[in-house]
Amino acid sequence: MNASRRGGDEEPGLPHPSELLPPLDPEQLDVLAELGRRWPRLAPYRPRTYEALPVDPDLGEFRRAEVGRGPFGRLAPIGPLAPPRAEDREAEDTTDAGPGGAPTPLHRARRLLLGAPLRSTTLAHESMRKLVALPVLAADALSSVAYGPEALLTVLVLAGTAGLDWALPIAATIAFLMLAVGLSYRQTIRAYPHGGGSYIVASDNLGRVPGLLAAGGLLIDYVLTVAVSISAGIAAVTSALPALRPAVVPLGLAAVALLLLGNLRGVRQAGMIFAAPTYAFLIAVLALVVSSLADAAHRDFVPVPPTLPHATEGVGVLLVMRAFASGSTAMTGIEAISNAVPAFRPVRWRNARTTLTWMIGLLIALFAGVVASAHFSGVVPGGGETVLSHMARLTFGPGFLYGYTQAATAAVLLLAANTAYNDCPRVLHLLARDDHAPHIFQRQGDRLAFNNGITALSATAALVFVAFDGETAALIPLYAVGVFLAFTLSQAGMVAHWHRRRTEPHRRKNLLFNATGCVLSGLVLVTAAITKFLEGAWVALLAIAVFVVLASRVRGHYATVRAALRLRPQAVTHVDARLPVKDAVPEEAGAREEGPACRGEEEETPQQVRHLTVVALAVLDLSGLRALAYAASLGQPLLALHISPGEDEADRFRDYWDRWGDHVPLHVVLSPYRALIAPLVHYIATLHAERPDLTITVVLPEIVPRHPHHRLLHSHDAARLRRALRPLPKIVITEVPFHVP
Amino acid sequence: MNASRRGGDEEPGLPHPSELLPPLDPEQLDVLAELGRRWPRLAPYRPRTYEALPVDPDLGEFRRAEVGRGPFGRLAPIGPLAPPRAEDREAEDTTDAGPGGAPTPLHRARRLLLGAPLRSTTLAHESMRKLVALPVLAADALSSVAYGPEALLTVLVLAGTAGLDWALPIAATIAFLMLAVGLSYRQTIRAYPHGGGSYIVASDNLGRVPGLLAAGGLLIDYVLTVAVSISAGIAAVTSALPALRPAVVPLGLAAVALLLLGNLRGVRQAGMIFAAPTYAFLIAVLALVVSSLADAAHRDFVPVPPTLPHATEGVGVLLVMRAFASGSTAMTGIEAISNAVPAFRPVRWRNARTTLTWMIGLLIALFAGVVASAHFSGVVPGGGETVLSHMARLTFGPGFLYGYTQAATAAVLLLAANTAYNDCPRVLHLLARDDHAPHIFQRQGDRLAFNNGITALSATAALVFVAFDGETAALIPLYAVGVFLAFTLSQAGMVAHWHRRRTEPHRRKNLLFNATGCVLSGLVLVTAAITKFLEGAWVALLAIAVFVVLASRVRGHYATVRAALRLRPQAVTHVDARLPVKDAVPEEAGAREEGPACRGEEEETPQQVRHLTVVALAVLDLSGLRALAYAASLGQPLLALHISPGEDEADRFRDYWDRWGDHVPLHVVLSPYRALIAPLVHYIATLHAERPDLTITVVLPEIVPRHPHHRLLHSHDAARLRRALRPLPKIVITEVPFHVP
Repeated sequence: MNASRRGGDEEPGLPHPSELLPPLDPEQLDVLAELGRRWPRLAPYRPRTYEALPVDPDLGEFRRAEVGRGPFGRLAPIGPLAPPRAEDREAEDTTDAGPGGAPTPLHRARRLLLGAPLRSTTLAHESMRKLVALPVLAADALSSVAYGPEALLTVLVLAGTAGLDWALPIAATIAFLMLAVGLSYRQTIRAYPHGGGSYIVASDNLGRVPGLLAAGGLLIDYVLTVAVSISAGIAAVTSALPALRPAVVPLGLAAVALLLLGNLRGVRQAGMIFAAPTYAFLIAVLALVVSSLADAAHRDFVPVPPTLPHATEGVGVLLVMRAFASGSTAMTGIEAISNAVPAFRPVRWRNARTTLTWMIGLLIALFAGVVASAHFSGVVPGGGETVLSHMARLTFGPGFLYGYTQAATAAVLLLAANTAYNDCPRVLHLLARDDHAPHIFQRQGDRLAFNNGITALSATAALVFVAFDGETAALIPLYAVGVFLAFTLSQAGMVAHWHRRRTEPHRRKNLLFNATGCVLSGLVLVTAAITKFLEGAWVALLAIAVFVVLASRVRGHYATVRAALRLRPQAVTHVDARLPVKDAVPEEAGAREEGPACRGEEEETPQQVRHLTVVALAVLDLSGLRALAYAASLGQPLLALHISPGEDEADRFRDYWDRWGDHVPLHVVLSPYRALIAPLVHYIATLHAERPDLTITVVLPEIVPRHPHHRLLHSHDAARLRRALRPLPKIVITEVPFHVP
Repeated sequence: MNASRRGGDEEPGLPHPSELLPPLDPEQLDVLAELGRRWPRLAPYRPRTYEALPVDPDLGEFRRAEVGRGPFGRLAPIGPLAPPRAEDREAEDTTDAGPGGAPTPLHRARRLLLGAPLRSTTLAHESMRKLVALPVLAADALSSVAYGPEALLTVLVLAGTAGLDWALPIAATIAFLMLAVGLSYRQTIRAYPHGGGSYIVASDNLGRVPGLLAAGGLLIDYVLTVAVSISAGIAAVTSALPALRPAVVPLGLAAVALLLLGNLRGVRQAGMIFAAPTYAFLIAVLALVVSSLADAAHRDFVPVPPTLPHATEGVGVLLVMRAFASGSTAMTGIEAISNAVPAFRPVRWRNARTTLTWMIGLLIALFAGVVASAHFSGVVPGGGETVLSHMARLTFGPGFLYGYTQAATAAVLLLAANTAYNDCPRVLHLLARDDHAPHIFQRQGDRLAFNNGITALSATAALVFVAFDGETAALIPLYAVGVFLAFTLSQAGMVAHWHRRRTEPHRRKNLLFNATGCVLSGLVLVTAAITKFLEGAWVALLAIAVFVVLASRVRGHYATVRAALRLRPQAVTHVDARLPVKDAVPEEAGAREEGPACRGEEEETPQQVRHLTVVALAVLDLSGLRALAYAASLGQPLLALHISPGEDEADRFRDYWDRWGDHVPLHVVLSPYRALIAPLVHYIATLHAERPDLTITVVLPEIVPRHPHHRLLHSHDAARLRRALRPLPKIVITEVPFHVP
């Protein structure tokens, strides 16, 4: 992991604008200067002054000049090309207008939905007070109380009353685990004050493959956080409004669409609007737990006997382990605060730690409270209603308080899904920055959002949601594996971190905390992977394995490309092997000094390029003649090529050519099988094989109709030819458009 | 209708290879010569001898030269470029190999399925003996006996026994109609000895819109012939094997796929293999009718009382009309022989007439026989079995003869569907030749088949088949309208034909026959349109109307494009309005004579083209430097353009540029919203607005990975930019590829 390539640690997750344009290293700069020395001085393309160019490249002074409506749309004035001094949000929006400058209806809809573009300089972390940070960052963790206890009970209920007796011990174990993992993450916050996501911690301390494993676990985690949170949120709604039950899948897709749009707009998770659902949920669940336990106290804590379906399994180690693995999904989201340390007010790490402590306390209280309440009130999963809804209905009655509880639950779950939308694109961005993912994940849209990552997350989550019919219970087995893999690796990374820093104060204590967290998380991971394997954990494990392999291959490809594109000293010399080249360049151009010709694509100076222009013509109409004139005006050796379906047509074309004056050498290829592309490609491939030093420019006339739907009426030969010639080296395709009404 | 544009009447339906390359008219030839005179003599692109070109364009002598395996695939030798003298089918197949020459697996599969390519010169009509022509051309008409009587009875049975009493009178009317239409088509054969399809006859004699109406009717007819024949054929199979009944839709799609493949291979409807099903069907139905009527004779022609469902309608005019319209679908296919006169042996028209007479006789015999047999044996539609199958089971018992009848029925129906595959692509070809359909329907594949028409027919028929669940009864209401519209217009065209030719012998008799046929067909058309309107005829009518409108608009577009592309004398003069142009071309190129600059895309001579080359660069790597060297080597005024996300990056890039030597003017555009395409497009659009006389060549470096799946890992900025710049006039896009492993 090269820290400098990641743009330094000071702004983790915040991409620098120059990230996509990596700087040249000193060696490459030397090569660049050496290459420059080999360029001819005062060549025709280098006028002594810029005024000798046919047009002043600094169009700024023409800015508001009379640019009217051209035949193909309004030609808009472009913005000032020096950086504008105006307010960030007020600068002209020229990012997505049509080429004529007039915004299309699609673009107008986009602006309406997504808002005006934001400048890169707008990027700044909002600093959050602890009272805002807690609800915003804890939404994911706290909301898992809505499905974690239920997942636990769903397994235990299979063994009837005997199974349910295990609920409290298992819940206590999970609560202890929460405490241990929480303490462990307190160490991470201290050690990575700039944000320590699992991917960063694992790859920094353990190496590339553990980092990728953690990243794979995280990505699975994000997809499932979205899918599970939405399905649990919709379950909260359908528990209250059973009439909506058949519409689960459409409702879920609508929720994904809402999150997609909101995040493309660039939702920032700050401000009270995001804090409200968490506090509302907190109040609802605490009130529920307190009332429920008060009721239980009235009954001297004698549990109401639940109405159970017939037990289908006996109590065994496997059942208890499965229940434990399911219940531990309530721990998802604990890592959120350690990722977001820079979002706190100074002293950042201290505030983050305090918030984490609060969150862990609340999480344990809610989780234990809900399990205990369910135990005493005899609520078990089933009947198309969530456990929380059932408890709320029993405790509050079907009135306002019940409706409030369900609404708060749904809201906090939507917010939890949104957390994944904040984190997943950033992990993808970090992966792309390390060449582990396609570089498109590095691009920020005009609202500063990582549009590609957001879209990829939405598509995957929607797919998973639909594939599992929006059933929370079916999704849970996949969930735990990814989460605990990331937890374990992150904490193992911290162990390695402390192990290396022998001088650090409290090193032994820190190491102990992290090691405990790591071992316990690892135990949950193994438990979940084994007990849930057939129920769906294999999907998650397979997906992580595939991700690691793919990410490694992506990195290998980028490394190869980087090496191929690198300016290197040998490229300057190894092309010196001269070919027996006929003097192809006519006298007029002979004023330039000639360099050696290149067999590969290594030309770095103009004099190394040996040209042959080939104009492919079907008919001699205006578009064809214009392509011919264009090609001839380049002043390079020129050959016209005509593909003819038969002898008669070939003779006719040659006759036209003679009448026109035979200004350009013409070669006619007969295509007895009527194909157009294949003979052309073969001819040009053979030309290249004969003279690999030539750069062959294929000039094609292309008819461009004004309305895109008219394109169906024209041949797409130019596009097909471009695709067919693409794999051949040293072939340059030039399309000369001819616009028709 | 311009007969010469259709390539003359002597080969209707057979496209001439030069059809896609229309010849120039004398006026255009004059303009061509005039334009040629304005080209400079002995320009650099016109070496005095061809040897001065860097490579001999006649690669024939290098044919088998050492062309080895390049880095991007094998470079195949190309075939001899003079027309090979070898056998038609033996010549080398270079039509669809990959660009490197090595056939890909896809291409090998294609060859295996579709066979080796065929030369254009292979096109020749097979001459058919009458005994072969009858079954081949009559399959469509005779096979309709398999569903026509059933469609008739299906309506009548709604009125119970009273309804069925109308079966014989209606059948007699339809038989009379067959006779009248048959006699009418005998006249068409005589008048159009080169084949008189409805579209040709109607458009020749009545004008463009009636021709299009007839063509629309025909296209609907072809689609429904495929759908109905396949659904009826599958009904014949499922009647015998009820276990297959749930698989109707997959079976139908498989049949469409079979027809698609067979016709892409270029199936010729000749030879005994195509005659067999018709004769087998003929024998089966005649045997069935004779045995059935013999049984009836034993019973003194007392009909067996049918077991009927409760009558739901009374006998009324509407019911009888509907039954008549349904039953008249038995007439589909009568026109086939008149389309195919040139396929007969000489004297063609006389043989075609004799065959038509035979066909009509057989059709009437079969149709009347089946209706009568059904009447006497008390068979009515229903019970998931076809009427023909029911009758065959009653008459022959469930043995070999029954199976033979069903197999023959299915085979003849598949053959009937194949007839549509022969005719539909030809009608589309004629429409395309008259500019009424996209010109791609004019292209013949390497097996001489009209692949695009065949594919379009398959797709539409499959869609219709699936939409109607493969139910013959549901498809029938759509069927009659298209068929009888084409019949009526064709015969009306013949009436107009005779009306004009006042000197023709037998003119009055011919006119009388055609007029009778026209009036009767018209009556059926009106009957079908009215009585079946809500049942589905509206779909057919709407489709025909949409087709006529679309075809007219397509023709209009092609006319506009043709006018825009036409070489015209005014183009030579109207560009003479000189612009106040700074002398953009540097001294080195000044040797050429300068012409006037063009504001539009009207350059016809090299000296009219004013160049500005713009290289868009993101980074200074090998691909970027190569694009720069390429652009500079063109020797035209050159400007480098860099889109930078921020000031720092811009300064850094300018610094690199200076180190390199600042050989080319550089302009940096800041893109505060991170967009790449939009600022570039705006900059270039503004350049164009400033100097509309300049032809701006945008040079883009493009990284081409070796494996297509690696393309996902690279930006597609070049392709996006090409799409964005496409609507702007006088912008030429040049992609300089850089191949990476």
